[in-house]
Amino acid sequence: MIAFSLDGVDGLARAGTMRTPHGDVQTPAFMPVGTQASVKGLGPDDLRGCGATMILANAYHCYLRPGADVIARAGGLHGFMAWDRPILTDSGGFQIFSLAHLSRVDDYGYHFASHLDGSRHSFTPESVVALQERLGSDVAMVLDDLAPADVDERRAAEAADRTLRWAQRSLAAKTRTDQATFAIVQGSTDERLRRANARALAALDFPGYAIGGLWVGEPRAAGVRTAAATCEELPAAKPRYIMGVGTPEDMLACVAVGVDLFDCVYPTRSARHALALTSHGRLNLRNARFVDDFRPLDDTCDCAACAQFSRAYLAHCFRAGEALGPRMVSVHNVAFMTRLAGDARAAILARRFVDWRRARSEQHRITGAETTNVSNV
Amino acid sequence: MIAFSLDGVDGLARAGTMRTPHGDVQTPAFMPVGTQASVKGLGPDDLRGCGATMILANAYHCYLRPGADVIARAGGLHGFMAWDRPILTDSGGFQIFSLAHLSRVDDYGYHFASHLDGSRHSFTPESVVALQERLGSDVAMVLDDLAPADVDERRAAEAADRTLRWAQRSLAAKTRTDQATFAIVQGSTDERLRRANARALAALDFPGYAIGGLWVGEPRAAGVRTAAATCEELPAAKPRYIMGVGTPEDMLACVAVGVDLFDCVYPTRSARHALALTSHGRLNLRNARFVDDFRPLDDTCDCAACAQFSRAYLAHCFRAGEALGPRMVSVHNVAFMTRLAGDARAAILARRFVDWRRARSEQHRITGAETTNVSNV
Repeated sequence: MIAFSLDGVDGLARAGTMRTPHGDVQTPAFMPVGTQASVKGLGPDDLRGCGATMILANAYHCYLRPGADVIARAGGLHGFMAWDRPILTDSGGFQIFSLAHLSRVDDYGYHFASHLDGSRHSFTPESVVALQERLGSDVAMVLDDLAPADVDERRAAEAADRTLRWAQRSLAAKTRTDQATFAIVQGSTDERLRRANARALAALDFPGYAIGGLWVGEPRAAGVRTAAATCEELPAAKPRYIMGVGTPEDMLACVAVGVDLFDCVYPTRSARHALALTSHGRLNLRNARFVDDFRPLDDTCDCAACAQFSRAYLAHCFRAGEALGPRMVSVHNVAFMTRLAGDARAAILARRFVDWRRARSEQHRITGAETTNVSNV
Repeated sequence: MIAFSLDGVDGLARAGTMRTPHGDVQTPAFMPVGTQASVKGLGPDDLRGCGATMILANAYHCYLRPGADVIARAGGLHGFMAWDRPILTDSGGFQIFSLAHLSRVDDYGYHFASHLDGSRHSFTPESVVALQERLGSDVAMVLDDLAPADVDERRAAEAADRTLRWAQRSLAAKTRTDQATFAIVQGSTDERLRRANARALAALDFPGYAIGGLWVGEPRAAGVRTAAATCEELPAAKPRYIMGVGTPEDMLACVAVGVDLFDCVYPTRSARHALALTSHGRLNLRNARFVDDFRPLDDTCDCAACAQFSRAYLAHCFRAGEALGPRMVSVHNVAFMTRLAGDARAAILARRFVDWRRARSEQHRITGAETTNVSNV
């Protein structure tokens, strides 16, 4: 099971510690994403070197390949991946929504065709609890019905209500006491729906709460506003996790309204596209100016990439198609995100989060401004 | 400059130490190949963990991309790649032969079109010396005219004679005293030509000698026989390097006839095709039987892959397209080759090389038998 304690607050921003069977997670924390039980290109040593504490894996992907049976026999995800720190598993609702074919949702659960081979499967709240218990993650997520921003009010309400009923069924289905299950708040960008859904879930006394169904296409301001409203309804003593967020800017915007945990493929996916996150702004290593730039990616960074390689060398690796390029920029970007979360924590504990965030924004173009267009990366 | 000393011999097999400006290389030694200034997928830490001492880079590739100027300004290949141990650079003759378009060779040198963009270039013995001096490798290779096994006697003789004349020009062109230049023996599989070429080159007193133009399509037995004849003509006190060899079996066959240094893309290329070299034989991780095989790749191996991951996990990475799979099997295969070379050295020093090689062959299917078909991997 997990225990969460608040170490400090500054305005709505929180610094906490989440104890898990595989160690503590200091929040705010960024979790690198290992969708298929591997954080793309990075091994456990790389991830430890990046300062990652908790990583995320995906129940939908692991269920389809290699299957829960293989992972359970390997000693769960920790044994299978050789990762001895905390792991959170997402339930798969979002992946069915975005990846599976011919998917259909009803009160029973999801019915879908695998994106790998078209085989037919069903996920229910109960089967997803059992699946994640076999995967052995420290934190599991309930199955949720995801309604993005562009649905009508009726569908948004249906999704929120169903997610609430599924959350109750999930609690009833649990058999492991060493795994914490988080509820997921839904309700699209309808503030009234979100608040009601959050309050109803809060009454069920889950050990933690996630905010789902945001950053899936709605305007960024609506996402932050909805996250803020949701946080207001969630119990202060429980960890809050916003799913699929995000960029440096979006993470800090959500820390500012009271979110504790984050995950996103952004640092590793952008790294594979030669984009490095630095304290001086983003660098696109395919730009000609890096061919003979012998500085490290970020002169304030002590990651393995910055300690060893120049921008020129990494840019060469991308141009030459050498896998070391994506890997080392992934190392750097994950280290950047974990350090940014750690710096935010230090600022919260020192009660200077607002000033710190403004200074980051002004000095380094790590900005929370609404004009930031993250889709251009 | 380098110094070479023999630490022991057993029959024709030799154990030596080659001192270079970046440290000692104990032979027999296997050099992983970083064609484009990167050993595919592996960083310096990985390579050190594999026990690699000397690695190889390619002058042709580095010249075309990123260019000698960039590498020189980065402090040479050592600074550019962040590799502080010895580096050998191949001259590019073989790459022009196999990769470049519209290539033509005459006494002046090679004239070719880049395989990257079709731009026209010329390499001469002198320009290749200057190029490698800028790259700053510990050992450079002379430009050679490569005649494979299927050419007629006249062309084979022309290539050998030209390589000899180019070797003389290379010596005259040298300006750096901290870089050793190795001559390359050519002469196809014509034993008389090879012996004459080797004797003539030996008289020029190079600090080391390479055997080129083998393992390029001729029958394996002809390759080993030609290598053996060449070694008989080369000075005992100088290191001998056979270019592009090889598999475990081929490396041991050449150690047996007196070769000291080896390089090949085989361990990393086969790793990217899911093939692991082990003391129990080769494993194709795409085989269904590995899906739930929770043993390490090789229970006698202490590499980072075997210390952390099961065959099941690595097989999953290949099936799921996760880059960690090729990388960790590359780590394992390079570690396998460096350890095999180290074990051969220990056997030579103990004067039991023949018995050791036979035992490896019988127990583990690491065989030097002529029936081994390495093309089936």
